[in-house]
Amino acid sequence: MTEFGFIDQIRRLFAALPDNGFEGIGDDCAVLPLTDGEALVFTSDLLTEGVHFLRSATTARELGSKSLAVNLSDVAAMGVRPVATLLSIALPRDAAGSWALEFMEGYRALSASYGTPLVGGDTTRSESGITINVTAIGRGAAPCLKRRRDALAGDTVFVAGELGASGTGLQDILAGRPDTPLAAVHRNPQPQVDEGIWLGGRAEVHAMMDLSDGLASDLGHILELSHTGAEIDLERIPVAAGSDLRTAACGGEDYKLLFTAAPEAAERLAAEFQAQFGIPLHPIGRITPDGGLTWLRNGRPEALDWHGFSHY
Amino acid sequence: MTEFGFIDQIRRLFAALPDNGFEGIGDDCAVLPLTDGEALVFTSDLLTEGVHFLRSATTARELGSKSLAVNLSDVAAMGVRPVATLLSIALPRDAAGSWALEFMEGYRALSASYGTPLVGGDTTRSESGITINVTAIGRGAAPCLKRRRDALAGDTVFVAGELGASGTGLQDILAGRPDTPLAAVHRNPQPQVDEGIWLGGRAEVHAMMDLSDGLASDLGHILELSHTGAEIDLERIPVAAGSDLRTAACGGEDYKLLFTAAPEAAERLAAEFQAQFGIPLHPIGRITPDGGLTWLRNGRPEALDWHGFSHY
Repeated sequence: MTEFGFIDQIRRLFAALPDNGFEGIGDDCAVLPLTDGEALVFTSDLLTEGVHFLRSATTARELGSKSLAVNLSDVAAMGVRPVATLLSIALPRDAAGSWALEFMEGYRALSASYGTPLVGGDTTRSESGITINVTAIGRGAAPCLKRRRDALAGDTVFVAGELGASGTGLQDILAGRPDTPLAAVHRNPQPQVDEGIWLGGRAEVHAMMDLSDGLASDLGHILELSHTGAEIDLERIPVAAGSDLRTAACGGEDYKLLFTAAPEAAERLAAEFQAQFGIPLHPIGRITPDGGLTWLRNGRPEALDWHGFSHY
Repeated sequence: MTEFGFIDQIRRLFAALPDNGFEGIGDDCAVLPLTDGEALVFTSDLLTEGVHFLRSATTARELGSKSLAVNLSDVAAMGVRPVATLLSIALPRDAAGSWALEFMEGYRALSASYGTPLVGGDTTRSESGITINVTAIGRGAAPCLKRRRDALAGDTVFVAGELGASGTGLQDILAGRPDTPLAAVHRNPQPQVDEGIWLGGRAEVHAMMDLSDGLASDLGHILELSHTGAEIDLERIPVAAGSDLRTAACGGEDYKLLFTAAPEAAERLAAEFQAQFGIPLHPIGRITPDGGLTWLRNGRPEALDWHGFSHY
């Protein structure tokens, strides 16, 4: 059973329950509209030793920061501000002392960067590896929320940074080279929190999500939920220095924002984003009425058996 | 380092961050007051194989229900209704198929009992044991919230059910007798959700929490946060059939509500509770201005080196 197969089964199993006002499974976060025009969003990510990280290939401080970063990225992908987190951590005996405190220091430093308090959680012993779960809560004006389902045919598809650095860094780590610059990028993801909030305030931005499983996989979620297709120009995918096109399209954990925007506003949006953040937006293609995901090389379709990255 | 030592260090480490309107670490749940007189509450609990459960001594369905139950109990202990949950689960290969579906069926059945939708979470592979994290969200009128810090000198101390069944059941399981009636109680905790919501609506109820680590330990949290002491009458502790006084006072995971109430309203409260739920409230002692926790036998102090139960 794949991760998505299991999630589909879960969704069916719970379909008959009341929603209590929540928009549930399917987006980066669950959404709870409030009565005052605001909305809260909620996301959880679980990291397990040996699957998401190797203790020998990351510092405790880096892991503390990364555990939070991947959740802040999910909140930012909804277009709103992260306002609090809960942290659950299971620690084997040999990680309960200074390792745990270093981990918390990394978690605290990134929390401080975005003014995000730690409001709860759980700590427990583990008989096997380290396991970490973070739940992040975001808050913003309901009209700012960006969902995966809102792409429109004709939209320009953007990514808000270069891709592939994390995927190539992971390849380095797995090949026994944990000290390369891209391995460091993999261990230290930087969520685009301010960028996500800014894009949330722009009505011309339609669908948005963060790239955690790779463009080839993640864009598919937007297309499925929006009932659209897309054409992506291979030569416009921004490949990070030291990476390669295939890793940029299929590698995981870049945590850059992927979004679609009204084409007539796309050029001004990119110029204002560049002025605000000092980095360019990269237009990589366009949403089509249907037809799934088509890769184009110099305008001509190219059949590529490219898939995203899965931890399952 | 103990669990509470680590939590104290975390609290100090994060003290300088903004609170974004949240009441954080220290109660059963974090609290977020909303602008319309309501409040949301949040709690997370992590269960790890070999520490919180043995796969050989529980069914997947029981574990699915229990993972949710312990979180619903935390929400109920705040006096409000659980309105949604997020579930993160790490599964080794040998638990990814029918085991996972049975687990979800148990989780769904208890969710349906209380109309609590599953709105998000994460599923991933594990290289070692099963790990489960549930985040529960509760909602209610802000004045109904019951906190650990609100006990007043003179209050009557109540428990809302008999104690010790789960602790004795755990002893049975660890002694190789997983088929006793109390072992089944341990595996199938029943959160007092309706009782908690009802008690939340009563102004004469002051401090409240759920008994997860045992009376000897948990009452200490109320006393510390309320800056009070307590006298507990040993002969009034309601010992579940088949258990014993020490296990009733020190065993974990009974998930009964522990609360304090204004003494002049205590008798009517207990009568109305009995009429509503068909079970008695048990008055077991009283809050004192200071002096820590004192055990009384026939009105005379008895020195007992009793502590609660810890998973850390």
